[in-house]
This record gives sequence, structure tokens and C-alpha cells, in this order.
Amino acid sequence: MRLTRYFLPVLKETPAEAQIVSHRLMLRAGMIRQASAGIYSWLPLGYRVLRRIEEIVHQEQQRAGAIPVLMPTIQSADLWRQSGRYDAYGPEMLRIKDRHDRDMLYGPTNEEMITEIFKAYCGSYRDLPKNLYHIQWKFRDEVRPRFGVMRGREFLMKDAYSFDLDHASAIHSYNQMMAAYLRTFERLGLKAVPMKAESGPIGGDHAHEFLILAETGESGVFLDRTVVDLSLGGREIDFDDRAQLQAIFDDWTAPYARTDDTHDEALFHSMVPEERRVEARGIEVGHIFYFGTKYSEPLEALVATPEGEKVPVHGGSYGIGVSRLVGAIIEASHDDKGIIWPESVAPFAVGLVNLKQGDAAVDAACEDLYAKLEAAGLSVLYDDTDDRAGAKFATMELIGLPWRLTVGPRGLKSGVVELACRRTGASEELTPEAAVAKLGAIYAGL
Amino acid sequence: MRLTRYFLPVLKETPAEAQIVSHRLMLRAGMIRQASAGIYSWLPLGYRVLRRIEEIVHQEQQRAGAIPVLMPTIQSADLWRQSGRYDAYGPEMLRIKDRHDRDMLYGPTNEEMITEIFKAYCGSYRDLPKNLYHIQWKFRDEVRPRFGVMRGREFLMKDAYSFDLDHASAIHSYNQMMAAYLRTFERLGLKAVPMKAESGPIGGDHAHEFLILAETGESGVFLDRTVVDLSLGGREIDFDDRAQLQAIFDDWTAPYARTDDTHDEALFHSMVPEERRVEARGIEVGHIFYFGTKYSEPLEALVATPEGEKVPVHGGSYGIGVSRLVGAIIEASHDDKGIIWPESVAPFAVGLVNLKQGDAAVDAACEDLYAKLEAAGLSVLYDDTDDRAGAKFATMELIGLPWRLTVGPRGLKSGVVELACRRTGASEELTPEAAVAKLGAIYAGL
Repeated sequence: MRLTRYFLPVLKETPAEAQIVSHRLMLRAGMIRQASAGIYSWLPLGYRVLRRIEEIVHQEQQRAGAIPVLMPTIQSADLWRQSGRYDAYGPEMLRIKDRHDRDMLYGPTNEEMITEIFKAYCGSYRDLPKNLYHIQWKFRDEVRPRFGVMRGREFLMKDAYSFDLDHASAIHSYNQMMAAYLRTFERLGLKAVPMKAESGPIGGDHAHEFLILAETGESGVFLDRTVVDLSLGGREIDFDDRAQLQAIFDDWTAPYARTDDTHDEALFHSMVPEERRVEARGIEVGHIFYFGTKYSEPLEALVATPEGEKVPVHGGSYGIGVSRLVGAIIEASHDDKGIIWPESVAPFAVGLVNLKQGDAAVDAACEDLYAKLEAAGLSVLYDDTDDRAGAKFATMELIGLPWRLTVGPRGLKSGVVELACRRTGASEELTPEAAVAKLGAIYAGL
Repeated sequence: MRLTRYFLPVLKETPAEAQIVSHRLMLRAGMIRQASAGIYSWLPLGYRVLRRIEEIVHQEQQRAGAIPVLMPTIQSADLWRQSGRYDAYGPEMLRIKDRHDRDMLYGPTNEEMITEIFKAYCGSYRDLPKNLYHIQWKFRDEVRPRFGVMRGREFLMKDAYSFDLDHASAIHSYNQMMAAYLRTFERLGLKAVPMKAESGPIGGDHAHEFLILAETGESGVFLDRTVVDLSLGGREIDFDDRAQLQAIFDDWTAPYARTDDTHDEALFHSMVPEERRVEARGIEVGHIFYFGTKYSEPLEALVATPEGEKVPVHGGSYGIGVSRLVGAIIEASHDDKGIIWPESVAPFAVGLVNLKQGDAAVDAACEDLYAKLEAAGLSVLYDDTDDRAGAKFATMELIGLPWRLTVGPRGLKSGVVELACRRTGASEELTPEAAVAKLGAIYAGL
């Protein structure tokens, strides 16, 4: 993309209304614009990041066996009355009357609707297990929306719903999602820790929130430092292997890790030696929850067992805050100059800076690099404006592209361009060919 | 995808509520499920087609220079009051009050919002031209939703908005979208004809609807047969070349082609010799519209000319009914047995039918083919159930995959599998390697 043809409205001043760094940087980098309180338009740069995160979430959900669907945003109130949640849900539910005066709502979540779909088509153990998910806009009418996309009213969420014949099989589905989440967050360049969550009326250990450690987090967190060092790395996961997935669950849930909702000070002290105790703040980016027959009973989603008995199906739900993740990644990865995108979600793989726009040799070298990078499958933001070098560098640093290629007349005389790393600040001079090859290698593994 | 792990709830009976063939087939093929009147959930097969159409629309919009953004579904009423449309828009607008009793609405379109965004960041001729688009869910509270996704209430639309300094430049933007639409519909396997539309208060020739000819269309159409034979084919288009785009506009708009909204019987007879006159029905799938300063004046979106004068920006809007296209393609491409997907939007490239599930040799051959097809980048729906052959064939025909590979013990003895074409019904016996190569070649150009 050539910057002269793009729409990248970066701001020089820091917007006064933004209280946290991710909100400030998203506004300054021209990623979002507020449409109304807690409701945002995604400008081109923000939209690109959102789509990249979405794509990684899709890939890891499907790798774990979940099947994509898409449910609508507007729901009828009927099913919610059946589950008992229409009245239980407070003023955060956006309630709507259509032209025929029917009660509708903008879905804050989809347990009822997916259970109705399941029930319509599946009635036997032979149809199980199933895990259906979608990535769709939700609405929660927060009384005081704040922190930009971190606590907005209209937000993009991935929500998956598993259906199993019995408790043991449901736990396997739960463990599949646990492993999928660990891998998803690792690919996003995040250190997200599963923490014991309130398990609701059915009790049990199968409710976890995934939190990223960040000073601006809304939750207090208490954890054993060892859990932060765990990593799936390149581990091969067979999502049908119950023992392997149970071992992953065990590894990640053995160390103490809780939010202030579930924290138990005495247990913390007894389980974790003082030098490993961490008290910090965290941002919730995911939530997995086994709820048993909570929805299948009132909505009568029954399946026949091999013995012919009809039993309510066992369910779980699994959320990831896709739009919130854009902010969360920035909270976890920025410096004084701006955002620092992990390669996996960067809006462009590389920024190309022409130091002397209008100079025939420099223009030609830039055009050549631009074409070669794009041909190598690398997305490029080419700053072909006639701004001065300092302004070009400041914009590239603000918007946080992981790599910057700088082309100027002096370097070209020696046959080199400069490749700079946003995260470390390190730079090196390379021939254009070597720079393309190096960038290709960096992005090859993603 | 293995069918035993998928969620493909095909129906044997024809649903009584569906009046038109696309609605019937989408329900029978397990593509959608009605959530409430005019509101649908997209089941896995339908979701795959929707995403493929969306991707083609994205590619062609971006090729023409339009830049993707994403605006929210819920809008404040304020901007609509400023443009005068809040009151003018009838009961089809879904009006909402939030918890603070503020007037909101579910966007039926985005002229106001995109103009506000443009105005916030662009104030000079140097910022022009711009064309920003998004693909987002819209809501129109139809009094009598019908025909499945063809006239639903919640629907997915691509809407682009161009901003130009003057009329001549705006017409070039219009012509860019005209060419992009022609290519988009051709890639979707559709013959869509641009027809003169009502141009609104500003008059002029720059308002066209794109219609597909289909018996179930809601509009009557009158056209010169020659327009149906026009095709871009593999033509290279330089979207900066004003003359080339004007020539495309001229070629496609010279022959008479109008809907009953704009039809002029006398003109039809004078322009078109009797043997070339076609009177038929059509489905609207796109709409392009140059509206000048209709929104920039009330919303005060002004830009400075090179001479320093402030003038309202010239705008156009360009819609494609993305979810409606799923139905429209089926209306245009089906037979008694079911859907016939064009390769470009097929939910899977090929269906793989195992004629004797449980037979070690047949199972092994199928697994091998499955792996090789997926490795070649071809998506496969592998029917690994133990249904009988007739049922497997009927399902594949109903869901309309363009190609079917059949593997059975008899063929394997001679070292061959059967490759069948859904559209022609023709089939041939090939070695598995030749079948993979042939399918690879068929899909290589898409």
C-alpha cells in the first residue's frame, strides 16, 4: 500500500479523553474513531489488525475441531425467556422492539440460540461431540464505557459452544479449548495465564479466565511465577488424544493463579513460596466455562444414549474478546514512541521509507523493493509522501510496524538499504536483495 | 473436512414455508436456519459460501483502489437528524433507545457515518480522491420479510463511499466501481446487467442497479439482448486510466437495459429492434449511485481546492448485497437435484465419496486422496459415513459441490476412481493421481 493512496489519519496531539495507553495509541495511530460512547469505527489500520487476530482465532479454533457458523446479532426475546435469562440479565442487555412490537435484543452472547440450533438437528449420541463457534459483534450496554475498545459497548467476540454426551467427554472438549486458547495467545505474542474463575452453581474446576498481565488491567491477579514460564512452543497437539490434553490442563492449572474474584490468601501462601508469589494486575481476554446442563434442561436439548435413554446434553462455552485483544496487545507491547506489533498481527509486515521522494534513483529503488516484497507475499506500507525523514520515522514508530526499510541516496551509492527492528531499535545495512530475503525468512514461520 | 465430524443437517422434506427455490435449497442443504422472521443463522455450509463471496468482493474492491474499514452496526440518531434522514426514513429503520434513553438505530446504510469520518480527517484536495468501504451487517425492518436471505431483515452488505473534489473526478470513481462490479459478478459466475436506476433529485446518468436475470426476480426488466453478451473476460484494467474506464462504462450502458422503475416503452422500441428485445425478471444484487453533495452539504464536509476555496466534497455510494448473493447465485444455478455452485464460491472444491466405508483398501485410497487433495490446496468434503451410495450421491448433488470423486472397490481393482462434474453430469475414470492433477488445474485459475 502506498501511503499517498491510503487513509492513515495519525494524530499529533494526545487525545484528552483517553485514559489508558492502548486507547491513546489507537486514536493517535488512526486505528479507530469513536462513533458514539463505547462504539467505534475501525479505520483502515485498525481494521487490518482486527482481521489478522480474527484469522488466527479462526485457525486455532478449527485446528481444535470447532466448526464455524455465524449467528445473527439480533435475537428474539423468546428463547431468553425460556432460559430465564431475559429478566435476569440487567440493563446491559440492549432491548429492542421491532415494527410489529415484538421484543428483540442485540445478542450479548449466544448460549440460547446455539442450543436451539443444536436441538433442531441433533438428537442422538451419534451426533456428538460437536463444537460450534462464531466470531460476531455483540452488544453490552455498559453504563460507563471506557478504555476504548477494551470496554466498549459493541465488541467483536469469538464464542464457541460444545455439546457432549457426558461429563467426561465434556471435559475433553473443555481441555481442547484450553489448549487452543494457549496456542492462540502464544501466536498473538501474548503471555496469557488461565486463572481459576467463579464456577457458578454447578461448581467444579472447569471455569477459567485467561488474563494478560498489564498494569492497566481491571483485575487484581495473584499467581505462582512458574505458570508464566510455561509454553506450548512448537509442541504437536493431537486434539483427539484425551491424555495429552489432560496433561496440558494439569500443567497449566496446577500452579496457583487466581483473580481477586477467586483469590484465597491462605491457600496462596500455603501453595506458593514467597519468592515465587506475584501480585499484579491483568486484562481478561478469554473465558472458558463448563456449565453442564444449565441450558439443555430448560431448552430441552436432549440426546438419546446408546441405550436409548434421553438425557440433556452437556455444554460448555468458550469466549475470546477479539476486538478487546487489539487493545490488550498494545497494553502489553508498546514504548514511548508508539505501538510495537508482534509480527503475527502487524497491519503491514514492513514499512518502506523513501528518504528523498522525487529523486529518480531513490524512487526507482523503492519501487523495485516494493514490488519484490509484495511478490514475496510480504505486505508493505510504502511512505511515498514528500514529508521529511523525521516525520516519516515518527509515523512508522507510532503505528508500530515490526520492521522498517529505509532507502536514501547515500546508502544507494554503496548499494545498501537500512533494515531496522522496531522492538530492539537495532538496524543494519544490507543489499536490497538480502533485506528482502531476511524479511522473507522472518515471516516464513508465521 | 470429514462428514462424520462436520455439521451438515440436510433435510429430506421440502420446507413448506419457503416460496422460492433458493430458499428451499438453502434450508434443505443445511446452509441456514431461521432465528426469527427475516433473521438467519448461517450454518457451516452456508457460512463457507458467504465467506467466499465476501472474499471476492474484498479483492475486487481493493483492486479498484477502495480501502477497507469497518463501521459499527449501532449508530447514534444525531447524524441522521443532521442529514434529515432520521425522520424521512420510515418504519424500516430499527430504532433503539439505550439505557441512558439516547436515540440509537441499527444502521441500514452508512452515508452519514462515513461522511463524519471523512470530515474529521480530510480537509484538502490533497486528501482526495478516497474510496472507503466496509462489509458489515445491516438491518432493515421489512414489514414482510420473505424469500429467505433474499429479503431478510438482518443482511450483510458491502457499501463503499467515494469522495472527490469535483464532478469529473467523481465520475471516474463511479466508473471504477462500475468496472469492479462487472468483474466481481463475473468471478461469482453471474451474468449481472447494469440497468439505469432512478437518479434521485440531482438527476444525471450515474445511477445503476445490477440485476441478475431470474424468473423469481422481484423486478421486471427490459433489455437489449446484446448487453447480456458483454464480458470483461481476462481484460487488464488500469483503474487509474480514465479513458479505459469511461469506455467500459460506455460499452455497458449504451444498450437499453432498464427495470420497471425506469422503463420507457417508446424508447425501448425505438432503440432496440424487436428480435433483440428481452422482457424478463431480475434480482437486484448491486447498486451504484453518484449523489454529488447531498450529504456533504448538510454535514458540512468541505475541502479546500488548490485555490484555497472551500467546497463540499462530491460523493457516491456503491452497494453489493453479499448475503443476498448467496440466494441469487442459487436462483441462477441449480437443477432438480439441488444447487450447482460455480467453482469460485463452492463451499468445498470437491466431494469425496467412499462407496464402501470399512473396506480397508477403499478407506486407505480415500484417506490418501483426501490428504493429497488438501495438500494441493483443494478443500474436500469427505463423506466417510456408512450411508449407502445413493444417499451419499443425493447429498452431494443437493449441496452442489462442483466436482465429486467416487472411490469404490471395483474401480480400485483397475486402479481408477470416478470424477464427476455436477454441472454437466459427465464423469470419467482416472487414476487417483490424474484426478488430483485435473482438479488442481481446474481450480488453479480462480
